[in-house]
Amino acid sequence: MAIMNEYSDMIEKALSEFLVKDKDIGGLVKSIEYSLMAGGKRVRPKLVLEFCRACGGEPENALDFACAVEMIHTYSLIHDDLPCMDNDDMRRGKPSNHCAFGEDTALLAGDALLTLAFETVLSENAVRATSPDSVARAGRLLANFAGVQGMVGGQFIDLSIEGKKVESDILEKMYGKKTGALLKASCMLGCIAANADVEKIRAAEIFGGKIGLVFQIIDDVLDVVSTTDILGKPVLSDEQNEKTTFMSLYGEEKCREIAAVLTDEALTALDVFGTDKSVGLRDFAVELLNRKK
Amino acid sequence: MAIMNEYSDMIEKALSEFLVKDKDIGGLVKSIEYSLMAGGKRVRPKLVLEFCRACGGEPENALDFACAVEMIHTYSLIHDDLPCMDNDDMRRGKPSNHCAFGEDTALLAGDALLTLAFETVLSENAVRATSPDSVARAGRLLANFAGVQGMVGGQFIDLSIEGKKVESDILEKMYGKKTGALLKASCMLGCIAANADVEKIRAAEIFGGKIGLVFQIIDDVLDVVSTTDILGKPVLSDEQNEKTTFMSLYGEEKCREIAAVLTDEALTALDVFGTDKSVGLRDFAVELLNRKK
Repeated sequence: MAIMNEYSDMIEKALSEFLVKDKDIGGLVKSIEYSLMAGGKRVRPKLVLEFCRACGGEPENALDFACAVEMIHTYSLIHDDLPCMDNDDMRRGKPSNHCAFGEDTALLAGDALLTLAFETVLSENAVRATSPDSVARAGRLLANFAGVQGMVGGQFIDLSIEGKKVESDILEKMYGKKTGALLKASCMLGCIAANADVEKIRAAEIFGGKIGLVFQIIDDVLDVVSTTDILGKPVLSDEQNEKTTFMSLYGEEKCREIAAVLTDEALTALDVFGTDKSVGLRDFAVELLNRKK
Repeated sequence: MAIMNEYSDMIEKALSEFLVKDKDIGGLVKSIEYSLMAGGKRVRPKLVLEFCRACGGEPENALDFACAVEMIHTYSLIHDDLPCMDNDDMRRGKPSNHCAFGEDTALLAGDALLTLAFETVLSENAVRATSPDSVARAGRLLANFAGVQGMVGGQFIDLSIEGKKVESDILEKMYGKKTGALLKASCMLGCIAANADVEKIRAAEIFGGKIGLVFQIIDDVLDVVSTTDILGKPVLSDEQNEKTTFMSLYGEEKCREIAAVLTDEALTALDVFGTDKSVGLRDFAVELLNRKK
């Protein structure tokens, strides 16, 4: 992500500015800050900004959209970690939100972040940077891809296949929603911020869908072939949880082959943006394929 | 709510149409339907539609905004009932969502409804009925009043004062956010749907805030002076939970006096809409004050 990393400071600063100061809800804001500012890779907001640039727009104009997708991503992690879901005690090397602040506060922090995402995508600032029409479209698309037919639906499918052997089409559908939908939305929101045409928005959706699958396939591979040291989290966790994964379905060689084909398809989708303007996105897709952790 | 009850069928029909059919997420949609179609009084959507009419607009044009606030209200009830929050097993005479569908599905159903609320307020249908600018304003306002500085913040304050004796200003602040904020937003969204001026929107906010407090004060009174039979839920639950209430602070006589003054102020706020156009809202406010259950 060499090129897209240029956006890191801009994103961290913008996210931190959404944390309100109000002593009556200080504990809630602390819990939100704990997860929102925990230093993830910020892949989604970077994609928003880079797609805006690829469409000839100013990345700054897409900054509220970028923050909004990161808020949605963060809320989903907080709720996912809760005892009634994955019951994960750790997240990014720290106690997960509910372990640090209690389940009740973690639940509300997630609800607050999800709500804040829509306040942000629709902000007066975003309207000035784009238009009322663009923020309405962006917010509607974000809700559609994050909701029951998108990310939340994917999480439900994931719950419903837990401990079952499933076919590859179900696995692809689940990941297409659970992780793919928000990646697609990120790419598309960048285009909307630049007022791009339908062809570019559609290409961004395809790119997001393909790299979402690559991300998941390589994740499954690394869970088996990497070491805990390199990965920074326990290996073989999927096998222990008896999860169907792309590795359990295909094995390493076939997985890497599929991921390479998907990456090629993702790169082809970028043609509509022109070679010059899509160099950052190309680099990102190739890095994703070759990542070791 | 004699006049506002005209809207009942319209609201039930519109809400039911948001339930998607998709077999992979059938269990999730069922859980959403269970709570969304559980036949509440629909106070908030009725206020949206009636304020639209009071501003000279067609209530139909505010229907998506009306459904959106009911979705937010419903999600908040589902999450509020969860074991890590109020741990309520029953809601509206039925097992609460997590008792019927499990905690994981209930959590996701709440997340899905919150997200769907924004998809709905920003829908293409809503854009046609109003304008891109109006849906963006409505969505931003809804997020602001439902989020960390509004409803979710109020729920956090409620958690943080649990079991403590608090002053009336804290109690008013908590309820002003927890229940008042979404009532205010409902009234304001109706005005926005009718493209009303700032003066009317501000009057709607004042009305919503006043009746929100009246609702809560009368709730506290009825919890002490009513019978389980009339109320349809256990009486004296606040006392058993050692909650500070308006009753424990002021007693019945003073409570009814305050509620009457607030209702007068709410009615005065309606003057800007004209007597003819606000008759439904006036009836509603007076009924709220005199309710026995």
